[in-house]
Amino acid sequence: MTAQRIRPLLDRLDTLQTGLYQKDFLLTWERSADELHAVLLIAEILEELYRANISTRVFNGGLAVSNFRDKSTRTRFSFASAASLLGLTAQDLDESKSQIAHGETVRETANMISFVTEVIGIRDDLFLGEGHKYMAEVAAAVEEGFRKGVLPQRPAVINLQCDQDHPTQTLADLLHLQQTFGSLDALRGKKLAMTWAYSPSYGKPLSVPQGIITLMTRFGLDVVLAHPEGYDLIPETLEIAARHAAAGGGSFRHVHSMEEAFRDADVVYPKSWAPYQVMEQRTALLRGGESEKLDELEKECIANNDRYRDWECSERLLALTRGGQALYMHCLPADITDVNCPAGEVAADIFERYRLATYREASHKLYVIAAMVLLTRFEHAGRVLGKLLDTATPRRPD
Amino acid sequence: MTAQRIRPLLDRLDTLQTGLYQKDFLLTWERSADELHAVLLIAEILEELYRANISTRVFNGGLAVSNFRDKSTRTRFSFASAASLLGLTAQDLDESKSQIAHGETVRETANMISFVTEVIGIRDDLFLGEGHKYMAEVAAAVEEGFRKGVLPQRPAVINLQCDQDHPTQTLADLLHLQQTFGSLDALRGKKLAMTWAYSPSYGKPLSVPQGIITLMTRFGLDVVLAHPEGYDLIPETLEIAARHAAAGGGSFRHVHSMEEAFRDADVVYPKSWAPYQVMEQRTALLRGGESEKLDELEKECIANNDRYRDWECSERLLALTRGGQALYMHCLPADITDVNCPAGEVAADIFERYRLATYREASHKLYVIAAMVLLTRFEHAGRVLGKLLDTATPRRPD
Amino acid sequence: MTAQRIRPLLDRLDTLQTGLYQKDFLLTWERSADELHAVLLIAEILEELYRANISTRVFNGGLAVSNFRDKSTRTRFSFASAASLLGLTAQDLDESKSQIAHGETVRETANMISFVTEVIGIRDDLFLGEGHKYMAEVAAAVEEGFRKGVLPQRPAVINLQCDQDHPTQTLADLLHLQQTFGSLDALRGKKLAMTWAYSPSYGKPLSVPQGIITLMTRFGLDVVLAHPEGYDLIPETLEIAARHAAAGGGSFRHVHSMEEAFRDADVVYPKSWAPYQVMEQRTALLRGGESEKLDELEKECIANNDRYRDWECSERLLALTRGGQALYMHCLPADITDVNCPAGEVAADIFERYRLATYREASHKLYVIAAMVLLTRFEHAGRVLGKLLDTATPRRPD
Repeated sequence: MTAQRIRPLLDRLDTLQTGLYQKDFLLTWERSADELHAVLLIAEILEELYRANISTRVFNGGLAVSNFRDKSTRTRFSFASAASLLGLTAQDLDESKSQIAHGETVRETANMISFVTEVIGIRDDLFLGEGHKYMAEVAAAVEEGFRKGVLPQRPAVINLQCDQDHPTQTLADLLHLQQTFGSLDALRGKKLAMTWAYSPSYGKPLSVPQGIITLMTRFGLDVVLAHPEGYDLIPETLEIAARHAAAGGGSFRHVHSMEEAFRDADVVYPKSWAPYQVMEQRTALLRGGESEKLDELEKECIANNDRYRDWECSERLLALTRGGQALYMHCLPADITDVNCPAGEVAADIFERYRLATYREASHKLYVIAAMVLLTRFEHAGRVLGKLLDTATPRRPD
Repeated sequence: MTAQRIRPLLDRLDTLQTGLYQKDFLLTWERSADELHAVLLIAEILEELYRANISTRVFNGGLAVSNFRDKSTRTRFSFASAASLLGLTAQDLDESKSQIAHGETVRETANMISFVTEVIGIRDDLFLGEGHKYMAEVAAAVEEGFRKGVLPQRPAVINLQCDQDHPTQTLADLLHLQQTFGSLDALRGKKLAMTWAYSPSYGKPLSVPQGIITLMTRFGLDVVLAHPEGYDLIPETLEIAARHAAAGGGSFRHVHSMEEAFRDADVVYPKSWAPYQVMEQRTALLRGGESEKLDELEKECIANNDRYRDWECSERLLALTRGGQALYMHCLPADITDVNCPAGEVAADIFERYRLATYREASHKLYVIAAMVLLTRFEHAGRVLGKLLDTATPRRPD
Repeated sequence: MTAQRIRPLLDRLDTLQTGLYQKDFLLTWERSADELHAVLLIAEILEELYRANISTRVFNGGLAVSNFRDKSTRTRFSFASAASLLGLTAQDLDESKSQIAHGETVRETANMISFVTEVIGIRDDLFLGEGHKYMAEVAAAVEEGFRKGVLPQRPAVINLQCDQDHPTQTLADLLHLQQTFGSLDALRGKKLAMTWAYSPSYGKPLSVPQGIITLMTRFGLDVVLAHPEGYDLIPETLEIAARHAAAGGGSFRHVHSMEEAFRDADVVYPKSWAPYQVMEQRTALLRGGESEKLDELEKECIANNDRYRDWECSERLLALTRGGQALYMHCLPADITDVNCPAGEVAADIFERYRLATYREASHKLYVIAAMVLLTRFEHAGRVLGKLLDTATPRRPD
């Protein structure tokens, strides 16, 4: 039964050309369509194996290092869950406990934590211009360590959220869309509204909207980005989205009206973020340790946000979508009006209606991470998965 | 040899009706006698398997999440030890590191941490009226997640100490009594003195005395609760204890004299706690953030404690017990006079005499936790254990 | 191929008499030559097995407890890596999170964390006269617990750095020398300069230089210890080094000139440390909580350090070594001039030349730790390793 569902996925996987072995997964726009398809397929296969009670433990020992430069529950648990399913030991590189604080260089630390490490998952989304740079630096360091014989294996660096992209989230989102609409093909021509939404907080990262517009445009969706004037994303990501739309048969539009974005949308993704210009100022002030100016900036921004309180995913707006029934998406946690704030990104009733769907959306992330590990750490990930299916060791007794 | 000792335990287990599968273990008084017997039997079987070097690893991957809302060494290690023996990866939900602090709802978090989770162990004993409520909330959330297809399995919530009960401690205590006196039957008619004892600190939780009087009365012991006037437990737990005594053939008495409790006792459990009325005030003040009043309350309470410095488990008092030889019990750490405080719960010589016995008492806890996991996560825990015994995979080579 | 390389190592291991089973590894000078050889051999075997993709997982469950009383990245990851390779669950005893802070005694805690624990790794190097004492106390506690039936197995205590010695570092260093020069025998007559070097920081522990002079003198090296007047190590360690040199066929000299130490040296180990007299004062002040005097002491020491800024491993000095090509060693992280400080222990160009070599040096540590676990936890470690080689379970699929 399970085998019947999984074999076709393995066959399809077999037709894909991927060059991820001994590499990293940092930005979706660096990866080919085949590679993205492979991630989705493997994630699906792992979900099937899990539900069929077939062990996916491929490693007998070895570390999965996580390095979170920001608070995190979901990502931490997704990463630890993926590690546990694959047989790796999750080990957190907590910089407050470590000597990195003492001026140790990234290059050195990257090697020191990697002697038996298969994957390093990094979340670094606080400072514009920093997160991706840091990940690339770690990747270069372990690459050198491996080439020069310091490391017996080449750990993959996986982006668990940076200043530019959030691949594990957006690929989980894409899997959610695939499962909701039946297939990837069914997504062609669907309208997705990635829109800013009001939140009483400030400084939320840009990686989700940037990741969504650049990824979904590759799969033939009609993506509309909407936000109030001044709440811009990094301009380069808009260019990428436009290029992807042109190449992928979808479209990309950029508007300043939530209504316009919602009209006839099949999918809405209303979410707060900070303008990238503000993030740039903030990064500069944080670097300079100018806490007074930071406070001022925060006040200013929150005051500015207040002008857009009507950017809420409300029943009135949702009624504008295709049949009034667009799929609501969120990366969680959402700011829900009258639930965890007096006014937020989404009306309580709407969130409640889609709440379990957003949980399901989130559930894919751990399998996406595990898929990235298999693709980067095995030359023939399909063969490894095939063996798991053949052996069919129970994950737990009946 | 091991098999000879374990088979009869498995046979007895087979005769018990338990309804714990796909459920939680929150309060002993919610569970049937058979269920409590099953926990004890499985804990014993696991101890035998461990000592016989037979692996008890039943899971090939999956998480065991711990959520401690209070400092903890013993419980943390008991939980991690149980997880390791069963093959689960312990993962701590540290709320200071997580986004729970940012207003994320319990319901959501409970699902986010549970996609591959078999058990969630929670310790939440600081606020009266809170701990059990929180655990029940988490349990309801994962129950919903499982029913609605968000979670592929239903993690069990296990109470590692709440405001009302401390089942893993008290069942470990019961196992200790069983092993000390030879059998559960041998406990019938034995007198157990659960008494308050002096400590220079304040705010110690009520869960142990409440858990002891409600549990031990079910096993035919003559339980005497003793404390100075005003050091009351939650009244409901006394009612439960009385009801249990009536049904279980034991007795329950409530006195205000340590002497009276100790007289002819077979077992003494002298331990400090804060009056529940004080815990209520404290909870209200903590909620209101009234730190000045909290300081006042603390001073008042410690001054009040000082009037009962003679509530110490001393040689004089111990001489009153059956043959002067009652078994001394403690959940650790104890406040030991002249060892870690100038005046405390127990005289140094007495503690030293029973020190290793209290360590043995504590050693059962990890097996009790593991037993709860097996009962809640497997429909036929006995069959799973039988297979472990048959296969007899060595835990480590000779 | 792997088997061909490993069999001779196993044969040699078979000829060694070791008494480490059911014991601890605290100080190298407490251990026999055979025991040190056994650690090196097993570490090598484990490295070979790892590179040959043969699983070294010997435990099916059980804990490896780490207890770091100081910040640490490398040691934390070495320990976790060793645990993962052996199949143990690493569990950190974080005293800030635990009740140890509440006056719980060492003896009790040692037992509470050890019910299913195979090894306790401790790093405690901050206070002179404390670290080793603490480790010995923990070891005595688990020894008692095991003898008295509280613990079903006797966890080994492994010194991950104390005030006196740093065995996992120095044995990794020795393995590095062995691999660099071809064999242990090739080290006889080689000159090793263990010298103080300038650093802008203060209070660096003495365990590395003390560990190096006491260990390397046992292997026939000509060890020269060099430091400015007043930067003394614990006198007893110099006596041990002298005794070892006399017995081991090497030599030990103590000078106050970096030039003299470097002249014709085959190996240089330039590293900062604080004078032991200062460490004694510091320990007393820290105990007394005299933070003002601590600040004064720090200022004084840093000012004193400044007089020895020329104690830098520079090109000029390195040119004095054998062929100007001595092997540069460091336990990392190094204070590198113009890299992480304006003036430090080593010139940037030199460090860069030897950088990957120092990474390789560090890579041995995790295998040394794992070797110590095997020797202390198995009566016949060689037999256990032989079985791993025979079975040859893949660590990961191809």
